[in-house]
Amino acid sequence: MDFIEELHSLSKQISFEPTIQGVGDHSSIVISGMGGSGIAGKIFSELYSKRPVYTLDDYMIPEFVNSSTLFIAMSYSGNTEEIIAATEEAKRRGARVVALSSGGKLSEMVDEFIRIPGGLQPRSSLGYMLVPLLRSFINPDEKVMKRTQELLASMDSDNQHIKEDAAELSDGQYIPIIYGFRPYNTVAYRWKTQFNENSKVMAFSSYFPELDHNEIIPLGPTYRKEVFRFYTFDTDMPERLRKRIDETERIGKVQFRRIKAEGESTIEKLFYLIHYGDYLTYYLGLLRGTDPRDVTAIEELKKSLA
Amino acid sequence: MDFIEELHSLSKQISFEPTIQGVGDHSSIVISGMGGSGIAGKIFSELYSKRPVYTLDDYMIPEFVNSSTLFIAMSYSGNTEEIIAATEEAKRRGARVVALSSGGKLSEMVDEFIRIPGGLQPRSSLGYMLVPLLRSFINPDEKVMKRTQELLASMDSDNQHIKEDAAELSDGQYIPIIYGFRPYNTVAYRWKTQFNENSKVMAFSSYFPELDHNEIIPLGPTYRKEVFRFYTFDTDMPERLRKRIDETERIGKVQFRRIKAEGESTIEKLFYLIHYGDYLTYYLGLLRGTDPRDVTAIEELKKSLA
Repeated sequence: MDFIEELHSLSKQISFEPTIQGVGDHSSIVISGMGGSGIAGKIFSELYSKRPVYTLDDYMIPEFVNSSTLFIAMSYSGNTEEIIAATEEAKRRGARVVALSSGGKLSEMVDEFIRIPGGLQPRSSLGYMLVPLLRSFINPDEKVMKRTQELLASMDSDNQHIKEDAAELSDGQYIPIIYGFRPYNTVAYRWKTQFNENSKVMAFSSYFPELDHNEIIPLGPTYRKEVFRFYTFDTDMPERLRKRIDETERIGKVQFRRIKAEGESTIEKLFYLIHYGDYLTYYLGLLRGTDPRDVTAIEELKKSLA
Repeated sequence: MDFIEELHSLSKQISFEPTIQGVGDHSSIVISGMGGSGIAGKIFSELYSKRPVYTLDDYMIPEFVNSSTLFIAMSYSGNTEEIIAATEEAKRRGARVVALSSGGKLSEMVDEFIRIPGGLQPRSSLGYMLVPLLRSFINPDEKVMKRTQELLASMDSDNQHIKEDAAELSDGQYIPIIYGFRPYNTVAYRWKTQFNENSKVMAFSSYFPELDHNEIIPLGPTYRKEVFRFYTFDTDMPERLRKRIDETERIGKVQFRRIKAEGESTIEKLFYLIHYGDYLTYYLGLLRGTDPRDVTAIEELKKSLA
């Protein structure tokens, strides 16, 4: 599949229907996933806090996992070694294990399995990963999901302004830094990882208000500042947060490029900002003469560790 | 207090004795703290997983907080606005609230209070913040604590080799990137924040194995690579992790400066690596002609938002 087709696939993914049944009966929830397959759990943990949600991106699972835990294993390939190890241990502890993948070992290891359509890069399957979590735990209004789907489709047909933004990044050889805020901290991290994978550039993310307790300090002086370009989001946030961002700009003597989220609900804004980052990083990759789809380094590492 | 005296204070902090009583009776634990006062909770959550530990660096608390929650509020000044807001809400929900601070509003808001000696920068009080958590939940061997104290004291009298490392960073105007791994992910983040505050330089942290799913990609190409300098730790880790780090270097065509942790136990190694970063960032600040103690930007922001 061409990578642009993968980007176009996101709007269709919003109507993915499978859900996890009976999620109310567990005292804790652990969601494990690495890289592109771990983003969904991290986003979900910012949207849902009725029970503790522990996100895991490592081999080892927390000690508290037991028969009252719901353990959700996410791996697009179904063969990610960290997630296989974590899932084996969760089963041993008697947790209820549900897996989401396109196949692989994971699909054979568990009793409860949600199969995701194959053929994509893991990072292009975010909708397939996140939508089942939203439907299972938050049960969003179908009108919101419909509007989200339409919003993403409209971005697929009209995104030339994002290409212009990418051209600026490319011309200046900038290192992007993305500043999030709840519930969009993980969206900032998603952008960072998409810059890494799609554009092959170093990029970093952080979040308000925590960054105002440390990273604001070197913003003011000119230490290497010319190599960075700063992004944040604009989502009709509370006045207190808007003022914080304004003051951080003033005291840090920087300008943030603020990406205004379209849509009414948090879910629409979330997917809008995600998809904006998808296109920005895709175009930057093309402009730099690299293949946005290529992730040879990750594959080479996996092989050498297998 | 001179900043070097603040650094020397850490070894004494290891013998700080107050503990939180009766920590076993709660279904969940929330630890809130911003910046330098938030590091202790984040480190603790990597060391303890018998129950879900939710760390919070924001105004809003999770929905699950109720009368069965132990809510630990940490703010060195006792006046951090995010933590005051979070603590008020935790009280309203009927959580058991314990506060650690040197005074401030927080000390008047709660029934259970651990008073920390004053006069330090928040980031220099890490021992006072972390040791009560270790003693209350993990109950470390007193011999380990004694050895940790001696190890830190020996670093205070012999750290010229760290100054040489700082000189290299200063000469090259490098941007440090620190790669952690469990249970030292937060130590990498601590270094990042100390570079920000003590040295006034931009710095970033990430962790294995997650970074091998994204950040490894731009390491290989030469995009702006000359501006970075990479650190990781060496702690007699499992062979699987050591090989992963070796292979990331090879495929990413980078060299990591590996800081070998001294000490036998995890607690000794943890504090050794923390204190190494304290000195590295302190010396870099001095070499750059800035005052390591100065955090005017943070104070100015707090004032403008008050």
